[in-house]
Amino acid sequence: MIIHLKKESDKQRIQDLINHTAGITFEQSGQTVLVTSSKIKSVPETFHSLIEEQFVMESDIQLAHNSYIKKRSVKIGQLELGTNQSTHLMAGPCSVESWDQLDRSASFLSGLGIKTIRAGCFKPRTSPYTFQGLGEEGLRLLIKVREKYGLNIITEVKDSTHVDLVLKHADIIQIGTKAMYDTSILRACGRTKKPVLLKRGFGSTLQEFVQAAEFILSQGNPNVLLCERGIRTFESKTRFTLDLTGIAFLKEYTNLPVVVDPSHAMGYRYGVADLTRAAVAMGVDGLLIETHPNPNQAQSDAAQQLDFPTFEQMFSTLKPVAESVGRKIS
Amino acid sequence: MIIHLKKESDKQRIQDLINHTAGITFEQSGQTVLVTSSKIKSVPETFHSLIEEQFVMESDIQLAHNSYIKKRSVKIGQLELGTNQSTHLMAGPCSVESWDQLDRSASFLSGLGIKTIRAGCFKPRTSPYTFQGLGEEGLRLLIKVREKYGLNIITEVKDSTHVDLVLKHADIIQIGTKAMYDTSILRACGRTKKPVLLKRGFGSTLQEFVQAAEFILSQGNPNVLLCERGIRTFESKTRFTLDLTGIAFLKEYTNLPVVVDPSHAMGYRYGVADLTRAAVAMGVDGLLIETHPNPNQAQSDAAQQLDFPTFEQMFSTLKPVAESVGRKIS
Amino acid sequence: MIIHLKKESDKQRIQDLINHTAGITFEQSGQTVLVTSSKIKSVPETFHSLIEEQFVMESDIQLAHNSYIKKRSVKIGQLELGTNQSTHLMAGPCSVESWDQLDRSASFLSGLGIKTIRAGCFKPRTSPYTFQGLGEEGLRLLIKVREKYGLNIITEVKDSTHVDLVLKHADIIQIGTKAMYDTSILRACGRTKKPVLLKRGFGSTLQEFVQAAEFILSQGNPNVLLCERGIRTFESKTRFTLDLTGIAFLKEYTNLPVVVDPSHAMGYRYGVADLTRAAVAMGVDGLLIETHPNPNQAQSDAAQQLDFPTFEQMFSTLKPVAESVGRKIS
Amino acid sequence: MIIHLKKESDKQRIQDLINHTAGITFEQSGQTVLVTSSKIKSVPETFHSLIEEQFVMESDIQLAHNSYIKKRSVKIGQLELGTNQSTHLMAGPCSVESWDQLDRSASFLSGLGIKTIRAGCFKPRTSPYTFQGLGEEGLRLLIKVREKYGLNIITEVKDSTHVDLVLKHADIIQIGTKAMYDTSILRACGRTKKPVLLKRGFGSTLQEFVQAAEFILSQGNPNVLLCERGIRTFESKTRFTLDLTGIAFLKEYTNLPVVVDPSHAMGYRYGVADLTRAAVAMGVDGLLIETHPNPNQAQSDAAQQLDFPTFEQMFSTLKPVAESVGRKIS
Repeated sequence: MIIHLKKESDKQRIQDLINHTAGITFEQSGQTVLVTSSKIKSVPETFHSLIEEQFVMESDIQLAHNSYIKKRSVKIGQLELGTNQSTHLMAGPCSVESWDQLDRSASFLSGLGIKTIRAGCFKPRTSPYTFQGLGEEGLRLLIKVREKYGLNIITEVKDSTHVDLVLKHADIIQIGTKAMYDTSILRACGRTKKPVLLKRGFGSTLQEFVQAAEFILSQGNPNVLLCERGIRTFESKTRFTLDLTGIAFLKEYTNLPVVVDPSHAMGYRYGVADLTRAAVAMGVDGLLIETHPNPNQAQSDAAQQLDFPTFEQMFSTLKPVAESVGRKIS
Repeated sequence: MIIHLKKESDKQRIQDLINHTAGITFEQSGQTVLVTSSKIKSVPETFHSLIEEQFVMESDIQLAHNSYIKKRSVKIGQLELGTNQSTHLMAGPCSVESWDQLDRSASFLSGLGIKTIRAGCFKPRTSPYTFQGLGEEGLRLLIKVREKYGLNIITEVKDSTHVDLVLKHADIIQIGTKAMYDTSILRACGRTKKPVLLKRGFGSTLQEFVQAAEFILSQGNPNVLLCERGIRTFESKTRFTLDLTGIAFLKEYTNLPVVVDPSHAMGYRYGVADLTRAAVAMGVDGLLIETHPNPNQAQSDAAQQLDFPTFEQMFSTLKPVAESVGRKIS
Repeated sequence: MIIHLKKESDKQRIQDLINHTAGITFEQSGQTVLVTSSKIKSVPETFHSLIEEQFVMESDIQLAHNSYIKKRSVKIGQLELGTNQSTHLMAGPCSVESWDQLDRSASFLSGLGIKTIRAGCFKPRTSPYTFQGLGEEGLRLLIKVREKYGLNIITEVKDSTHVDLVLKHADIIQIGTKAMYDTSILRACGRTKKPVLLKRGFGSTLQEFVQAAEFILSQGNPNVLLCERGIRTFESKTRFTLDLTGIAFLKEYTNLPVVVDPSHAMGYRYGVADLTRAAVAMGVDGLLIETHPNPNQAQSDAAQQLDFPTFEQMFSTLKPVAESVGRKIS
Repeated sequence: MIIHLKKESDKQRIQDLINHTAGITFEQSGQTVLVTSSKIKSVPETFHSLIEEQFVMESDIQLAHNSYIKKRSVKIGQLELGTNQSTHLMAGPCSVESWDQLDRSASFLSGLGIKTIRAGCFKPRTSPYTFQGLGEEGLRLLIKVREKYGLNIITEVKDSTHVDLVLKHADIIQIGTKAMYDTSILRACGRTKKPVLLKRGFGSTLQEFVQAAEFILSQGNPNVLLCERGIRTFESKTRFTLDLTGIAFLKEYTNLPVVVDPSHAMGYRYGVADLTRAAVAMGVDGLLIETHPNPNQAQSDAAQQLDFPTFEQMFSTLKPVAESVGRKIS
């Protein structure tokens, strides 16, 4: 259950309640919020005087459930995601590979009016014998490109060793699909107020996905974006299976903005535009799409990154789809 | 490989070639077409004089591959699916339950300008202790409703015992998800020219799905619609996972019109409208959606059928989405 | 619920109860058994005088649940499966291809003391351009081989068109993985008393699998064997994933003998012996294994069929494993 | 490819080769081994004089492939896993909860002659509102129990924040299923020589699983155990699906000892004994099983932990099964 504690309450009594429930507290709008296991449906009467408001919850999807807070929005620079006004397009190469590659990407995206560039520095590769990302050097290039073009940067944390570095420098912290269960990363992201884009693990249920967001929310950071990027199924013609049925679930039951990454789901250039339009028509709050000045030379995800003319062609089709469902592309 | 045989060829020599290749023949535009295993990449020189044109194929997706015929279209009454002009909406209750239920459904759909009604008579239920469909009596009610409202009727074949009956009376034969591998049904559907809507098995790969269509096409019926209706994955919050990534594959590599059934994928009313809009934005050729005058009383699929006001509300939003991608709703 | 009706009851009152509950009846040990939807937890008091015994059930796994009947056994010739005494080995080629191939197989298996030969006549292939089985001719060869070697024959039904033929001639009717949902086949198999080996659909849940058995049981045939043969998962190194966790479930909750087919799960020769030993150590009641005089020339499943020396080598290792868990190989 | 470099080679030339191939080197038996991407099939002639032996590989399963080294064994205390002599049983509670709970477990296991105790300190829970493990305090209790009973201890690393601590104190480092892709953990484990039990991610392919082991091996630690613990499939009656088909693959193609964890796959007490016997009959090198003095009071995995009498009963059945396949239980 979620308990809003009265502001003037005795600190020791509050601590007694925390101990009794083995719960977690954080500050929200100047108030202490206590979250216990959802199995707890009430607290002993002796603690009732501490409680301003309480919410009994069905499962450990608690702070993210729309029966608690109807809808949350997340600010990214001047923009606000989750207000049903617009779909925010984040794009860029899979990995930072060089200044030239990043600069050309940023120049291209900036020219289209896109406000947020994506690119990975710490790459969670499945083989040790491939490109592992530029690491901290990549982050420096991202910072430089932000200065030059005024873009927001979103980049990935893959494990706890570099989480502080990314937290410090990125505008949006991306928790990668393979790191979704890393509770140290999740908690670290909960101790900032920066927007966190949490990717669903490709083998993770929707329940686990939203519970991962609870690790962040329950540390006091309300700025979480849920990103569906394809789940692993028996189908092997496509890299993953984009779970838009899951997006419908997230929209129905959670209060967090939802983002779709069609590039990783598809795994090939050919379906990205179609899936992007599908996501826009569903009214998602954001999109994460890979584009590269020369995809065939890319050091990772070569098959799925769009070249610039293809990206631009797709981009030009998004506005009418967004408008048809009462939104803009931002 | 696919071989177009010369019209004037000696019948015995043709038979020799068929025997040699263990292939299948059918008539197409007054010409005999021979299809062999795709592992055969050439035939002996002695047969070359019989060949007008030949197509070496990579896999047993042959007649349905767009490297053979770029794009096929299928006529349903006055309409033509697969021309990139429109998305055809087929709707109606899960099962025929009574004349009153069917008549109310037909009246409602007809009033919206919808041209094709769906409803099952032979229900492939997973328990023997539930409603099994009205069978032949259901078919009679469908015929009656067609006469009254001038609607096309689409209804499901679930096994070989009633395939002739459905073939005779339905305007579109639906092969259900659980019958996709039933080669007797597939071949029977290949011996008519009526449109066949083939549903993907929920545990079937895209390769197998299109190969099932090959059973129909290679009997000489070119009028096949491929219908994605959700695949079975580890996710249990939704009934199935709608594989729109797979739709992108089908659009890229096959020549057959594609249809999406969001109702069965979702399994709940709440996401149907969003997934329908997503499918329209992807430029699919058809939609199959469940609606019922009183969903909570439905004898099957009660959770996912839309009531009429909800359906109508959704219906009103489809036209702008279709127009945003250069299509109409038909 | 399952209701055992009193023998002397009024027929009209019984019919009233059947109509009231929309249930199914069959005869069992001279008694009429009525099975209703498991959602029905009681019947009106007016019918109580008809009831000898009743079983309220949790789900539509009813006749197969071991809370109804603790354990069922199935006779195959002189043998009895399901008594915890032995594991019955059924083996043979994937398909009947020729008299010579079948005769050599039967001679080999017979020489090892194996009592049941498997081989398919009606093959549920996923491509129309491959070998489709010898059909009725294959069945004739099986009958001939039975006469010559005194073996039981098990062969597959793939759709309703040939179910009567197989029911008439086979000793054990195999319902193939792709036909598990075919309720016409299931019901037809319920109207005989012959043993039916029901394969789990590779995309089917355990709940659906056992409910398919309910279609047979509720027609009055208690002789059902449940066969696990691998399910479809994201893993593609192996053909399917053998669900031995599912076997544990079936042993814990159902009363039917369980059979494992390691050949189709593995898809390659190399793991078959190991998985067979695993199944024996789990105490399964039967095994279904593919072996062929010349696997590389096999017209179907070439990669997974064992040649005779390999089969014999494996066979020799099974007895000690069976004995280690208190069983024999039969 | 894998290249064994000649011992006397010029260091600068070796560095040139490393740079040219973007490969990784480590020391093995006093020799430098270079591993490049498997896409590299040869190196320029100028480097040939540096090469003592080279192995061209098909995929990035390289050091773990049995075409490179036929079979590796791993020492745990006095024992050696991977010699086809025995199956090593590791058992204990899911989590360290208290000294009393751990002491009773160790006393019980020790009494049975079991040599290795498992128990988690850093728990990768999917909800922030449940027990998260005792952390460093748990590790202290494990060290104490090791001293008291002379047991080996195996405990889990869940993220990079505590990897050094576990590396220092545990006898076997367990990389949890949710941490399999954490390349920082993998590399850290590669810099020790302690045995590492790598659990397969429940959404991870066998290819990715073995490639994760490559991260450890290519840092110079050859002591890796591959542990299958169930994968996520559509089946929900059991917690996961134990992939013994995958174990057959690992035994056929890799050189690493294999371990099976039936407890997490099953998720319930009832199937654990059967699956354990299945694994033993397959000839696996190790087992990891959960047992708890009072499972219903366990703070994690309560449903699947065996109580001591049940564990002991199961344990007594393993020896004959092991012997039937020519092994011992160690």
